[in-house]
Formats: sequence, structure tokens, C-alpha cells
Amino acid sequence: MNPLPIHSRADCQALDRADALAGLKSQFDLPPGVIYLDGNSLGVLPSATPARVAQVLTQEWGQDLIRSWNSAGWIDMPARVGNKIARLVGARNGELVVADSTSVNLYKVLSAALQIAKQDRPGARWVVSERSNFPTDLYIAQSLCRQHGLELKLVDEPEQLPQSLQDCAVLMLTHVNYRTGRMHDMAALTRSAHAAGALVVWDLAHSAGAVPVDLHAAKADFAVGCGYKYLNGGPGAPAFVWAHPRHAERFWQPLSGWMGHDAPFAFTPDYRPAPGVRRYLCGTPAVIGMAALECGVDTVLAAEPLGGMAALRAKSLALTETFIHLVETRCGTLAATDLGVRLASPRAGALRGSQVSLVLHAPLQHAGYAVVQALIARGVIGDFRAGDSERLSEVPHILRFGFTPLYLSFAEVWDAVEHLHQVLGQQEWQNPKFHQTASVT
Amino acid sequence: MNPLPIHSRADCQALDRADALAGLKSQFDLPPGVIYLDGNSLGVLPSATPARVAQVLTQEWGQDLIRSWNSAGWIDMPARVGNKIARLVGARNGELVVADSTSVNLYKVLSAALQIAKQDRPGARWVVSERSNFPTDLYIAQSLCRQHGLELKLVDEPEQLPQSLQDCAVLMLTHVNYRTGRMHDMAALTRSAHAAGALVVWDLAHSAGAVPVDLHAAKADFAVGCGYKYLNGGPGAPAFVWAHPRHAERFWQPLSGWMGHDAPFAFTPDYRPAPGVRRYLCGTPAVIGMAALECGVDTVLAAEPLGGMAALRAKSLALTETFIHLVETRCGTLAATDLGVRLASPRAGALRGSQVSLVLHAPLQHAGYAVVQALIARGVIGDFRAGDSERLSEVPHILRFGFTPLYLSFAEVWDAVEHLHQVLGQQEWQNPKFHQTASVT
Repeated sequence: MNPLPIHSRADCQALDRADALAGLKSQFDLPPGVIYLDGNSLGVLPSATPARVAQVLTQEWGQDLIRSWNSAGWIDMPARVGNKIARLVGARNGELVVADSTSVNLYKVLSAALQIAKQDRPGARWVVSERSNFPTDLYIAQSLCRQHGLELKLVDEPEQLPQSLQDCAVLMLTHVNYRTGRMHDMAALTRSAHAAGALVVWDLAHSAGAVPVDLHAAKADFAVGCGYKYLNGGPGAPAFVWAHPRHAERFWQPLSGWMGHDAPFAFTPDYRPAPGVRRYLCGTPAVIGMAALECGVDTVLAAEPLGGMAALRAKSLALTETFIHLVETRCGTLAATDLGVRLASPRAGALRGSQVSLVLHAPLQHAGYAVVQALIARGVIGDFRAGDSERLSEVPHILRFGFTPLYLSFAEVWDAVEHLHQVLGQQEWQNPKFHQTASVT
Repeated sequence: MNPLPIHSRADCQALDRADALAGLKSQFDLPPGVIYLDGNSLGVLPSATPARVAQVLTQEWGQDLIRSWNSAGWIDMPARVGNKIARLVGARNGELVVADSTSVNLYKVLSAALQIAKQDRPGARWVVSERSNFPTDLYIAQSLCRQHGLELKLVDEPEQLPQSLQDCAVLMLTHVNYRTGRMHDMAALTRSAHAAGALVVWDLAHSAGAVPVDLHAAKADFAVGCGYKYLNGGPGAPAFVWAHPRHAERFWQPLSGWMGHDAPFAFTPDYRPAPGVRRYLCGTPAVIGMAALECGVDTVLAAEPLGGMAALRAKSLALTETFIHLVETRCGTLAATDLGVRLASPRAGALRGSQVSLVLHAPLQHAGYAVVQALIARGVIGDFRAGDSERLSEVPHILRFGFTPLYLSFAEVWDAVEHLHQVLGQQEWQNPKFHQTASVT
């Protein structure tokens, strides 16, 4: 689907009429007047979720009470919802479970990977990652490096990764970068890491439900991911964890809670890990959160008869191509000023996730937060990610826009760019009310 | 409140009329025809929960989307709900947060306690606990002992604890035992542990909202607890974690996720733990689960104008005294048979939590599961915890009954014992349908 050239809103509307996925939007309750370009941060509410959660609360919990662990299948939810997510990321049935948060799951798999690496490759000294990886991943890695007497080596540019793998125990990467939307070649990097004797842990936070992922084809070792972004699982939704079967049973993961026990209801005092990925469970599963997550995952699976992740990816690329094209032609540099924006995401679609990041031209660098607030006031919801104030040329402030093909239209892309054009052209960012910062930005 | 003697259901009804807490039951939606004696496993649904969760879903998430992290205060929920729980366990404002599961939180605090112990007392060799502690606690301790080169020493009888503290790094106990309902003297054991140079980690899973707890008065070091039992937070509700201020900032806890960072939204690559207990947060908070938990905690706080935890404790003791008295007089030994039950919980109220456990007389030992199923079929919901089949005399099969003073009446206690009398007298456990086991028992 090549959307270009686009000259008018009517061109976008024509794309919408030709969009075989347009009907998927009816799965959601979106607020009127909002163009939501933040599904990469928090996905939207599926229409089915409130009724399903109400059923869990009033019927399963309220009426059936403790019996619902069996009668409503609560105890099977981590595996059942996990199997649905598995279909989106190239994992097989029974290999992926829903549990805890992405950070906690990363701790489990990185710890297991480090134990394996220490045994298979005792001389390894590094966990390698990107300096621009999502911070929680780096923080967890720092903790485990301290525990295991390793060091965390951070590279500044993804191109440096293949030559940074000497004496590497584990390469830990987020598949799609949260700031730039740049997507790694999972298969190629996994191949490089394996050739260098290292294991690879993939964080799919910005991939699951957003871009096609095939963990088995890539020969990946471990993966974790997030439920509340492109999977539409709701704020703070449970996360997921996958371990390749060749690794799953080699070690305990350290969070050896009762749900990862081989027989949790035997209540024996000695830990005996469950077979396979079930040992990556820990405490009592978050039933309410998992019920909401399942509704969210179902909205992505609803695309399967229409071509599934490949079709979603094609539309996502068309949306982001359209956005980039319109931004550059309409807001690249505003007439008679040096105000404007430039692209901070890869131009090549194959290198880009489902997100486009922009950087304001130098005179406006510090107005990024206010520009995003002015857009939000107009109903265009993106977000702002601060750069490194000491080296803004390398790590600039970023305006971030996520494009979720399940519920976005090409006309909305047109309208979003029109709003951006007006915010910049009318210098709305100068309004003091757009400079008030909140605790979460 | 001494309920005895009780000779009739009318005596129980008189106690109900005199019960100043009876009105608290109106906070819940209980199924008709059910006598729920399993609030120690899964608390009941507060009437306020469905509407509050629906508000989070449809308004805060559905309409306000990402903005709700600020506008709806999502980001403050771990501390806000934590402060409410703090009032129930003798912690101060700002010292306790809601996060993750009990197992994950135990990993955090036990890890921190072991780091402190290693520094302050390098010769310490043991983590000491009870063999009958809830298994997930033992499993987590096994994992951390392996990591830290320590051993887990398990005692069989609580009386052995004080003399088992030599070279102990950390004493880790569940305040109220999940099988027997036996309650430790928190202050005395903490004193013994400190005298021996050890720290103490308390699991309040069966205490928070069930019995008065005063962590500061007991000079406790760390505590964790469960949201889905007496706090009525719903299936798999988030748990809580407390660190005494004298310890909170001494060490990282290993699950160093972004929500425990000093400035999570600065997105800096280096972990810098937040001050105080906030560093015990890890991943993105489970908003939906916390909203439900807050409704549950509010049902316990509703007792504050009526005397709070002290009043709830007085009623709880009266309920369990009544139950024990009626069970022993009516079901201790059934006429002309040796069928019957004996008490497996402490007889002295001061040693008992809000739970009563029973053991069937020897000829019926193996019918425990079926007896519980027969009771459930009659609407009396308790649960069954299997003993150790190789040494049933020490660790017998147990029939477990929780008594939550927020919503139980004395008449229900009478009726429950009447049903137990009939199940035993009519040998209903022999019905094969009560022997079908489910995955969760």
C-alpha cells in the first residue's frame, strides 16, 4: 500500500475508503474530537472491555467467589492469554505466559540468560545494550550486572552493535526504540550475537501488536513485552514473557514464586520449578488486569481474517509514510521563518516501527513540550520525551506520535498535520498555559 | 465481647442485634444463600468496586486516555492506596506502597534485608522460617539463599524459633499461619531476632485487615502483604510493601525498575533509587487492580469510626470463639460414632488470627476434601488444605474457615456449624461427586 502522493484531505479520505482494515475501528470507544497518536504509550479502550471486566467483578468474583479459580478458568489465564499473544510474536502454543510487569519479567529472563551465559561462556564480561534503550531495561540490567559481576556496555548508535559483541554474555535490546521508533533487524542481530557466543533478550514493548515479529524465525532466546501499548490492555496491564524451549528449563528464574512451582497447590515447602515457561510465573495472577488485557489482545487478533499482522503493518507503514510526507511538505519549514520540524525516525519504512518522532528546528528546541500541549488542547494527543539537556544535538527533545492501524484513519493523519501546522504557524506554544509541566509528561 | 455461652440460633441472633459493626455488611454484594468463610483466601466484592472500576475504564482510560496519569492521579496510586493500608498495619504516611505481588515484594525486601545483614553481620549463615510458612515465601527465600550463599533453616514448631536464631541473618515469618491460623507475637519475636543480631521480615498476608498490627511498635524491619484476602481487593489484587525508614534507603532492591527511580520521567540511563519506600516500586503500576484494591481497603477503613481494627478484632474473636464452641459441642464427636472434628487452630484467642482450622478424626482423615465440597454444595464456603501425606499426624489435612467481621454474622456461624453437623451426620462426603478434584483446591 503506497499512499503517495497525497495532495489533499480528499486523497486521505480516498485511502480510507480503500482501507480493508477500517472496520476494525468499531472495536473501540474513542472519545469524540480526539486524534489519538499515543497508542504507543497507552492503547485505547476496547468496547468489549467494560462488560467483560464487569462480568469478572460482579459474576465471577462477586457471585462465584473463590470457586472461579476453577469454574471461570482464572488459574489458566496466564497461559490462555499468553497463547493469544504468542500468535502475534511468532511464539508457539505453551511457550509464552502473561505475568507481572515488563520490568519484572525482564529481570527473570535476563537473570536466566546470564546464568546460562556464565555456564556456557565463563569468560563473558558484558551485557550489551543501547544507551537510548528504555530506561527501565537499563536499570534492571544494572542491577543484574552488579549481582553477576558483569558490566553494562551501552552503545550510542545501533550500527555499533555488531562489533560490540566481543566477550558479550547477553545482548539486551528493545526491538523498536521508544524514542525514535527505529526498529532493529531482529534476525540479523540475533545471528550476530549467537555468532559471537552471546544470547539475546528482546523487549517487544513497542512491537507486539505493532509490527510483525517472528521469535522462532529469528532464533531469539528470550523475550518480554508490554500489555498496555499496542495490545490495548489498559493502564498498567500485565506484561508477558517468553523463553525459547531450548532455554526454558535450564535454570530457575530467581522470582521463584508459587505459581511457577510444578504443583502450586501441593503446598510443599521445596521449590520445584514447573516445566517450560510456566516457571516464569511468580505470584498470584492479576485476574482483573488479565481479563482486560485479553479483550485488548482480541482486538489485534480480530485482524487475522483480514491479513493479520502483515496487513496491520502495511497500513501502519502507509499511515507513517503519509504523516512524514505531510509533515515535511507542510511543516518542514514554515514560510518566511526558520520554524519547523525535522524527522527523527528512520525514513526507510523497514527501519521504522509504528511511530514517528519529530524534532523542532533549533530556535524552537525548548518549545517541544509546549507544542505537544498545544496539540493536545486541539485534541491531537501525542507525547513529548525530553532529550539530554547537556547534549541536545545527539539526544534532542522529541515529539512522539504513535500510529495504530487498528483505529487510525488517513483523514486523521491529515487533520493532525493540519493542527501541527497551525500550532507552529500561529506560535501557540508561546501561550504560558502550555508550559505548565505535570508529573508525567 | 464474650459471646459464650450460646445455646441456640436465637442466642446468635441476639449477638447480631448487639453488634455495632453489623451495618458494615451493607458495603458488600454477597451472593444469596452463601455463608462465606473463605475471606482469608479471597475477600468478597465491595458494592462500590464495579462502579469505580467502570469509571477507571470508561472515563479515565476510555475518555481521558494517557492524560489520566496526571489528571486522575494514576501515578500517585501506589502511594495513595499504600497510605490507606499503612493505617491498618501501624506504618506511617509515606512508608508503604502498593506494587506487584506478595511474592515479588518479598523478593525485594528479603534481598534488601540480606544485603544489610551481610554488611552488619558478615558471619550470619541462615534465613530462618517455619516449615509451615506459606510455600511461596519459602520458595522466594530458597532462591535468595542460593544467591547469597546462605541456607534456609526451617523449624517445625513456632516455639523453636527463639532458640533458632544463632547466626541468623533474617527471620522471615508470616504473622498468621495460613494453615492453622496461629498468630505469632510480632513484638516478642522481633525483639528476640534483634537481640540475636538478625533482621525480621513479616508477611502480613493473613493479618492486614484481619488483626491489629503495629509495625512500628514491634520495631519490625520489613513487611509485605496481600491485597486480595482480608483487604477485599479482588482476585490477584496488587500487594504491598513496607520498609522501616531506618532501612529503606540503605540499599537498592534488585528489581530496580523505572517507577522506583528518583526521577522516572527524566528517562536517564543510570538508575538512581528514589528516596524512601518509593524505590520498592518497579514497573508501571497496575491501575485497574489498584482501583479495585482501594475500594476494598476502604471497606476496612469504614470501621474506623466504629473502633477500627480493635473493634474488628473483638468481633473476629467472638466469631471464632462461637464457631469453636459450637463445633466442639455439636460436631466434636457425633453421637454413637467416632466421627467428628478437632480444633487445629490455637484455642487461646491471643494466638489465633481470624481463621479456624479443623481436622477430621482419624477414620475420616481422607474425607477432608469431600467434606469441604459437601459444605460448598450447601452454600458454606470454606477450603481444604492438604497435609503431608507421608506424615499426616504432624501435618494433617485441614478444613479451613476464615471469619471476616466486616460481613459475617453470628447467625451465619450457627448455620455453618449446623451444615457441618449435617454433612458429617448424614455422611454426605461419601457422595462420589464430592471427590472430583479441581486444579485449585
